Amino acid sequence: MQYDFENPMIAVDLLVFTIADDRLKIVLVERGEDPFKGRLSLPGVFVRKGETLDDAAQRGISEEAGLSDIYFEQLYTWGQLDRDPRRRIISVSYLSLVDCARIHLSAGERTSSAVLYDVEDLLSSDECLAFDHRDIIAYGRERIKNKTEYTRIAFEFLPEEFTLPQLQRVYEILLGRQLYKANFRRKIAPLIEDTQKMTSGDAHRPSRYYRQKPDAE
Amino acid sequence: MQYDFENPMIAVDLLVFTIADDRLKIVLVERGEDPFKGRLSLPGVFVRKGETLDDAAQRGISEEAGLSDIYFEQLYTWGQLDRDPRRRIISVSYLSLVDCARIHLSAGERTSSAVLYDVEDLLSSDECLAFDHRDIIAYGRERIKNKTEYTRIAFEFLPEEFTLPQLQRVYEILLGRQLYKANFRRKIAPLIEDTQKMTSGDAHRPSRYYRQKPDAE
Repeated sequence: MQYDFENPMIAVDLLVFTIADDRLKIVLVERGEDPFKGRLSLPGVFVRKGETLDDAAQRGISEEAGLSDIYFEQLYTWGQLDRDPRRRIISVSYLSLVDCARIHLSAGERTSSAVLYDVEDLLSSDECLAFDHRDIIAYGRERIKNKTEYTRIAFEFLPEEFTLPQLQRVYEILLGRQLYKANFRRKIAPLIEDTQKMTSGDAHRPSRYYRQKPDAE
Repeated sequence: MQYDFENPMIAVDLLVFTIADDRLKIVLVERGEDPFKGRLSLPGVFVRKGETLDDAAQRGISEEAGLSDIYFEQLYTWGQLDRDPRRRIISVSYLSLVDCARIHLSAGERTSSAVLYDVEDLLSSDECLAFDHRDIIAYGRERIKNKTEYTRIAFEFLPEEFTLPQLQRVYEILLGRQLYKANFRRKIAPLIEDTQKMTSGDAHRPSRYYRQKPDAE
């Protein structure tokens, strides 16, 4: 028996999250062409012949948002039949968490602008995004919560030395909920160490600076 | 500027892990056709027109290993250029963890046999697997370790009521290392509750039966 196998095009779509203005944000672009012309979408490109998925991810974020040398990890591959009105296109999504100091957006070849969007506002609004990109963003946002619970990604958003209120605030933004100070400090204690330095404390009581304990479990 | 985009075929490759004979095992098939005829490989199929990735995963495990109704989660998508000698083929891999009582293997259409293989033996041997399937299996094995640390998957390999030595042994097999009894029991205590039942204890001291605490954090 002979079957028709699928020969889809492969898109790579990029979720670049950062913390800015005390909020979780994501890089989006406004589509400059159909389908979904004028709608917000994730930056992304089609995989070219001779190009790996990882190579396409690097090229995509550079071409669409003017960013380079960003570390990505693969998130999920989206293969619903009707996700693109043109033809069967499978999207491999990639996730990145970036210090906002590294983000200097510029427009790409096929995009009129790249912008930082507030993630919680976006997901609670009825803003219509291109393709299934709302689902992809919601999935990425959940992955960040899980990574925050189980890994040390929160520290990537902080300078080397930080105060406990700064650290707690980053955890709260990434988890999307407020934390009790006493519980938080008990759980975080094994991961950090005292630097023996204090903030100047002009307006407030001085705070102690901590750093990540390098050999913590 | 016009570029040549890739129109690859999409394979779905399936990692079905189980615990049998006190070891972590995986379902492999012997390839019945070239390339890599006669070599061990993961069960897998090409995605057909009109078929989602998840649909293809269910069809693949049924056609290649005679198993059905298995819960899969997507693992990773493999897009190296030279991973298949025929042409560009991108593989979406899926992971499943199954109670070995549910595994009754039969040969598939294009496979001469489906077998349970010892994962640690396989990864430490120089057995040459088809395609990049050794890499995929190694990646899946790491994912299981992580899921064991951070989730409750270990309980899926046990009956509803179990003894602490049984539970510890499942954790050891999934993590691939021995655990200290006292440490293990301290860490696991918040997740389980006493059933008030005891084993008969013919040959040994009787053991207490526990069950998973449904509302544990």
